[in-house]
Amino acid sequence: MFGARFLARALRSCSSAPCPGHRPPARLSVRDALGAQSTSGERVKVQGWIRSVRSQKEVLFLHINDGSSLESLQVVADSSFDNRELAFGSSVEVQGQLVKSPSKKQNMELKAEKIEVVGNCDATAFPFKYKERHPLEYLRQYPHLRCRTNALGSILRVRSEATAAIHSFFKDNGFVHIHTPIITSNDCEGAGELFQVEPSSKIKMPEENFFNVPAFLTVSGQLHLEVMSGAFTQVFTFGPTFRAENSQSRRHLAEFYMVEAEISFVESLQDLMQVMEGLFKTATMMVLSNCPEDVELCHKFIAPGQKERLEHMLKNNFLIISYTEAVEILKQSSQNFTFTPEVAAVDLLVPGVGELFGGSLREERYHFLEQRLARSGLTETYQWYLDLRRFGSVPHGGFGMGFERYLQCILGIDNIKDVIPFPRFTHSCIL
Amino acid sequence: MFGARFLARALRSCSSAPCPGHRPPARLSVRDALGAQSTSGERVKVQGWIRSVRSQKEVLFLHINDGSSLESLQVVADSSFDNRELAFGSSVEVQGQLVKSPSKKQNMELKAEKIEVVGNCDATAFPFKYKERHPLEYLRQYPHLRCRTNALGSILRVRSEATAAIHSFFKDNGFVHIHTPIITSNDCEGAGELFQVEPSSKIKMPEENFFNVPAFLTVSGQLHLEVMSGAFTQVFTFGPTFRAENSQSRRHLAEFYMVEAEISFVESLQDLMQVMEGLFKTATMMVLSNCPEDVELCHKFIAPGQKERLEHMLKNNFLIISYTEAVEILKQSSQNFTFTPEVAAVDLLVPGVGELFGGSLREERYHFLEQRLARSGLTETYQWYLDLRRFGSVPHGGFGMGFERYLQCILGIDNIKDVIPFPRFTHSCIL
Repeated sequence: MFGARFLARALRSCSSAPCPGHRPPARLSVRDALGAQSTSGERVKVQGWIRSVRSQKEVLFLHINDGSSLESLQVVADSSFDNRELAFGSSVEVQGQLVKSPSKKQNMELKAEKIEVVGNCDATAFPFKYKERHPLEYLRQYPHLRCRTNALGSILRVRSEATAAIHSFFKDNGFVHIHTPIITSNDCEGAGELFQVEPSSKIKMPEENFFNVPAFLTVSGQLHLEVMSGAFTQVFTFGPTFRAENSQSRRHLAEFYMVEAEISFVESLQDLMQVMEGLFKTATMMVLSNCPEDVELCHKFIAPGQKERLEHMLKNNFLIISYTEAVEILKQSSQNFTFTPEVAAVDLLVPGVGELFGGSLREERYHFLEQRLARSGLTETYQWYLDLRRFGSVPHGGFGMGFERYLQCILGIDNIKDVIPFPRFTHSCIL
Repeated sequence: MFGARFLARALRSCSSAPCPGHRPPARLSVRDALGAQSTSGERVKVQGWIRSVRSQKEVLFLHINDGSSLESLQVVADSSFDNRELAFGSSVEVQGQLVKSPSKKQNMELKAEKIEVVGNCDATAFPFKYKERHPLEYLRQYPHLRCRTNALGSILRVRSEATAAIHSFFKDNGFVHIHTPIITSNDCEGAGELFQVEPSSKIKMPEENFFNVPAFLTVSGQLHLEVMSGAFTQVFTFGPTFRAENSQSRRHLAEFYMVEAEISFVESLQDLMQVMEGLFKTATMMVLSNCPEDVELCHKFIAPGQKERLEHMLKNNFLIISYTEAVEILKQSSQNFTFTPEVAAVDLLVPGVGELFGGSLREERYHFLEQRLARSGLTETYQWYLDLRRFGSVPHGGFGMGFERYLQCILGIDNIKDVIPFPRFTHSCIL
C-alpha cells in the first residue's frame, strides 16, 4: 500500500543483520523506560501518544503513553520545542536522554533533544477530552477509540495477562490444550439459542448445506473435550462460545469466551472443585503480581471495596455446601464464594456476577447413556459419543468458566461489555 | 448425572483439605512416572489405556498410556493377574511400586500389586487394531478416536505446545493479546467467501437481523488489531478464522487458526520480517525442546527428510528477495524459506505448504485512505477506520501466519486435516 519508497528501503538492507554505519538510538517502550535502573547516557527513542501537555515559561512537560503500561513517561523539553501540534492525542517520537527524575512522582524521565509529531489529533472531533474522566457507558460508544483511555487500557491489559495466566496454569498442571471446533453440528445439551452458519453466497450451492448438515456456532466445547480426555486424560480449551439470546443484560453477550476443562479418572466432584479453585486462585495471583497498577486503577476508581473482597476470596478455602444450605446462607451473609453441588453437578456463584463456574461428572456407563439416547431418538446421531463408552470408558468430569465474568469478578466491573474488546449482543455488532 | 452416591462422597469431605486417615497411593501421570529420578519405595497409582499386552509363562507385561507422553509405561505383573479384560484399548488403574527398569528400553517400570480394569474395550468393533500402523487417511474417518493413536497423539501434543510457545513469544516481546471478534459486520478486504450468521430460530425476530446488520464469521482480525495497535503499539491475536470456499484441497479448511500481529511505528517491511522470523524460530525451538519425541515420531515415520529441512531453516537467516528474483530462484533451487516483498507487502512461502506468512504496511495517511474509500462508496461504513488516521495516526503494519500450515511445515504433515482436532471443510462437519 505504501509504494516503492518502502520496497526500496526493504531491499537495501538484506537479511536480518543490523545496518552498518551510524548506530540509531535504541527504541524503548514506555514501560522499559520507566523501569530502567541505570542511565548510561545513551540516546534513546520513545514513541507514543501525548496524554498531557504542560507548558511553563522555560520548560515544556509532555506525558507519553504507548499502552505498554498505565503510567506515562514524562518528557522534559526546552520551551523552544513548544508548538500547537504537540497536543493531547497526537502521536510523537521523542529522542533524548533517559535520566533519573528529580520528582518523586516517577522514577525516570526523558530529556528531549528531538521531538517529532508523527500524526496530529483533531481535538475538536476527538470524543475524549483532555483531563476528563469519561464514564464507561460513554466510552462504549467508541469501540475503536476507547482502548486509548486509562480505564479500557488497564482492563484490556489485565485481560491479556489473565489469558496468559490461564494457559500457564493448565500447562503447569499437565493439561493438553485443544482447539475445540467453532462450527459444529451438535447442540450440546440444547443450551440456549443457537446461531446457524451458512455461506453468504448461496449461488454455488443452492440446494444443499455447505457441510451437508445444518451447522451452528458452538455453545460449549464439552463433548469435544470428552473425546480428547479419552486420549490425553487432562485437557482444556479457551475460546469463543455463542448464544443467540435476545438479552441486553449486563451479564450476557452473544459472543463470549469460555475456559473449559475435562478430566478423566475423576472420582468425585471434589476432584473437580480442587481444579476450579486452583485455577481461580493461581490465575488471579498471577494477574495481581504482573499488572498491579492496572488492577488497582479498577479497584480505586471503578469498584471501591472490590480489593478487600478479592483478598478475602484468595485467602480462604472455598466452601462446599448443598443447594439448600447455599440458599439459606446467601440469604444471610456476605460469603463470596460458594460451591453448590446438586446431584453430581456443581456451580460456583459470585455476588454481582452470578454463575462463574459450572461443572459436573458425566455419565460414563454405556448402557445408561444408550437408554437415554434411545428414548430421545438420538442413538444414531450420538453413536460416536456412545463409542467413547464402548472403548475403554473412564469416569470423567469437567467444568466451564465464563472468562468475561471472571474478569468482572476480579476487577469489579459491573457491565460485561466493558471487559471484552468488541462486544456483540442483540442489535449491536459494531466494527 | 451420577446420582446420590457422588453427592454423599463430595459432602463428606469439606473444603480442599486432604482427607484424614489412611493415605492413598500418590497418583502419577505416565510422563511423571517415566521421568522419576529415584524410587522411594512408596506405592503409586497410574491410570491409562492399555497399548499392548504380552503374556509370558510367569510374567505379564502391559504398556499403559495416558496421553501425557508418546512413551508408555511398562507394567510388570505376576501372571496370576492375567485375564481377558486386560486387552488393547481397555482403561485400567494400576497400583504398585515404581522401580528402575532392568531393560534399556525404559528408565522406570511399575511392579503391579493391584490392577483394576476400569472400562473394557470392545475389540471387534474398535477400528484400530493392535500393533497395526494405520495410515492417516484411515484415521481421519474416526475423529472421536484417532487422538488415541501414537500419530495423532503426537501431532496434537505438538499443537498444544506450539500454541503455548506462540503466546510466550509475543508476551516476552511486549505484545498485548487481543481477542478480536469472531462475528463481525466487516468483510476485511473482501478476502474469499464468507459465512453468514443468523439465529437458528427466526421465530422471535422474523423481520430483522439479530444484530440489525448482516453478520459474518471473521476472515481476519487485521482491522480490529489496527484499532488496538493505536493504543497498545504491539498487539496480537490467535484464534479461528473462516472461509466458505468450496475446496477439498490438502491445504484448505473452512475453519482454521491464524496468528496475527499488528505493530505501530514500523518503518519498513524489514521491521515486520524480523518479527516473523523471530516468531517462527523461537516457537519452533521451544516445540523441539519441549516435545522432541513427538516431533521425532512425525519426522521418522511420516515425513522422512523433514528433520534436516527444518534444521536448515532454523540455522540460516531468511533471505529477502524481490518477487521476480523469488520466481527465478524457486525454479532452480531447494531454498526453503524466502520472504518475497512486493510493493509494501511480503509473503513467506514454504515448499509443500505454500503461503505461510502474509504481511504488509498499512495506509496510515488520512487523505489517501479517504479518497480510496470514497471511490468505493465506503466512507460512511469505514468512518471508524478513518478515525484511526484522524486522531494521532502512526505508520503501522502487520502479518498473519496460518497456524495449521505452520504445523504442517514443522512436522512435515501433508494434509491439513491431520493437524487440527476436528477438521471442517466442504461436505464435512463431523461431530
